[in-house]
Amino acid sequence: MIDEELTKRAKMVSEAIDELLPVVHPGGLYEASRHLVDAGGKRLRPSMLLMAAEAVGGDPSALAPAAVSIELVHNFTLIHDDIMDNAALRRGRPSVHTLWGTSGAILAGDTLYSKAFQILGITPSEPSKLLASMDVLSKTCTAICEGQWLDIEFEDRSRVSEAEYMEMIEKKTGVLYGASASMGAILAGASNEVADALDLFGRLTGMGFQIQDDVLDLTAPENVLGKRRGGDIMEGKKTLIMIHAMDHGVAVEAFGKKDATPQEIEKALSALEKSGSIEYARNRAVELVENGKRALDILPQTPIKALLLGLADYMVRRKY
Amino acid sequence: MIDEELTKRAKMVSEAIDELLPVVHPGGLYEASRHLVDAGGKRLRPSMLLMAAEAVGGDPSALAPAAVSIELVHNFTLIHDDIMDNAALRRGRPSVHTLWGTSGAILAGDTLYSKAFQILGITPSEPSKLLASMDVLSKTCTAICEGQWLDIEFEDRSRVSEAEYMEMIEKKTGVLYGASASMGAILAGASNEVADALDLFGRLTGMGFQIQDDVLDLTAPENVLGKRRGGDIMEGKKTLIMIHAMDHGVAVEAFGKKDATPQEIEKALSALEKSGSIEYARNRAVELVENGKRALDILPQTPIKALLLGLADYMVRRKY
Repeated sequence: MIDEELTKRAKMVSEAIDELLPVVHPGGLYEASRHLVDAGGKRLRPSMLLMAAEAVGGDPSALAPAAVSIELVHNFTLIHDDIMDNAALRRGRPSVHTLWGTSGAILAGDTLYSKAFQILGITPSEPSKLLASMDVLSKTCTAICEGQWLDIEFEDRSRVSEAEYMEMIEKKTGVLYGASASMGAILAGASNEVADALDLFGRLTGMGFQIQDDVLDLTAPENVLGKRRGGDIMEGKKTLIMIHAMDHGVAVEAFGKKDATPQEIEKALSALEKSGSIEYARNRAVELVENGKRALDILPQTPIKALLLGLADYMVRRKY
Repeated sequence: MIDEELTKRAKMVSEAIDELLPVVHPGGLYEASRHLVDAGGKRLRPSMLLMAAEAVGGDPSALAPAAVSIELVHNFTLIHDDIMDNAALRRGRPSVHTLWGTSGAILAGDTLYSKAFQILGITPSEPSKLLASMDVLSKTCTAICEGQWLDIEFEDRSRVSEAEYMEMIEKKTGVLYGASASMGAILAGASNEVADALDLFGRLTGMGFQIQDDVLDLTAPENVLGKRRGGDIMEGKKTLIMIHAMDHGVAVEAFGKKDATPQEIEKALSALEKSGSIEYARNRAVELVENGKRALDILPQTPIKALLLGLADYMVRRKY
């Protein structure tokens, strides 16, 4: 059921993007800006915004611009991250900087950034609620930058603690899910208490999502992943899996080896399965999602609340 | 007089930046974000915002956050532009990407971007006026991306028309001055008609400023410029000077020659002076500023209006 409901909302968001982010002059800039956005993705964040609005009794159909703004911020961060990570592929397509160069990708990301604020501003809502949403969105963007900075900084360090990793993924991934859920609530007229609960729901489930992402980077088939498997290992990313492995003295030869062969990645996968590092990460992801779900105790039992709980489960159950 | 008045406002803006953009965790990110901001600059844009607010009868002292937001957007664009232009120096200091790498500079710029919206949002003003300002700022950021995209695109073209160049500098430089003046007016409670007139004032004088910048890139001493002279020539930038020269069949051997010697730049300068290309650009800059000043006819004759007119003159009179 959750798949169907997500597909429905993803379609609505994609249609709204077509309308709100047309390819205008200069065409190259807008094509570069749309490239990744049009490559799809599951639109989980805007769907969470729309479901949160509905769960607090609002009309989600009015909030398409706000949902689009969240999706554009997400895509902006991916475009800039891919430059930093030198990632050639994303969603099975060449990344934006691969096609338009570093300059083109910086500008495509910057354009999505400003368009996100511009489009959020046209959401039909009261000025004070719009301002509160913009405050959430701008603080979220700052936190995402902090998270990405930490992620890069961690690459140059020999060890990273689990607490440091948790801070990093909260900022890099958690806060945007938190913003999605809380902005949906705020724009639909929820109280601060309810908006805060939805922020916590999004934040914790978003952290679970990120850990699951790290797990999938290592375990999902490449045709499903849309990029090379084990990229995080080769990049020397200190994921929760690697932190657990290092804490337990597990040798992973492919770690930080940018030209690791598929065989070496397989070997790393075996070692990390044997040490329980992958299972440990999976369990932590499930735990975060369960804690996130508990934040929704504040909401009445409705079908749409059940849907939000289903979305939370989906975030760690998903296979891609 | 204008110098004194600018110094006073620049000081106020710098103090507000210190307060509103503290170096917090993760320190490296905020140091990178502050590096260029702290290198000074004349703070012309935030000063224009403060003067515009005063010229329409507002209290500029309340608008420090809005002024800071404009300065942060300006610095964000410089940091990202320097990556794209591969510029090693800015304001006599190593550019941000020279010190923190491309990734660090992308993130420093992105951080200033979100901080600009966050800080604009705390300006004490009515919600509807704040929303109108945010709309101006986000549209302005989009236009700046379009202008920078055109600027880069022009490098790969054999010819660019004067009209195309004018569109490019309007977007790359004019609109942010337009936003400065109109946001000052909007936040101070001016009518739409007055805000539009101030937008035009800022936009046209900003375009004059950009042409003067192109002139100074070629004519100012390097110790004043804070970077190598003739950088635009070496980069193959199609400035108004070069467009005039090409239209008149002037040969500039150093054009697009990234390793041009100082002697070759001197030779280019002589050729461009002889052809009247530099004078042509200077005259167009003065003309734009005069047109911009006429937009202020809508305002009553006050000392602060005289100051705005003085700022307009300063933008093309300045020697650095």
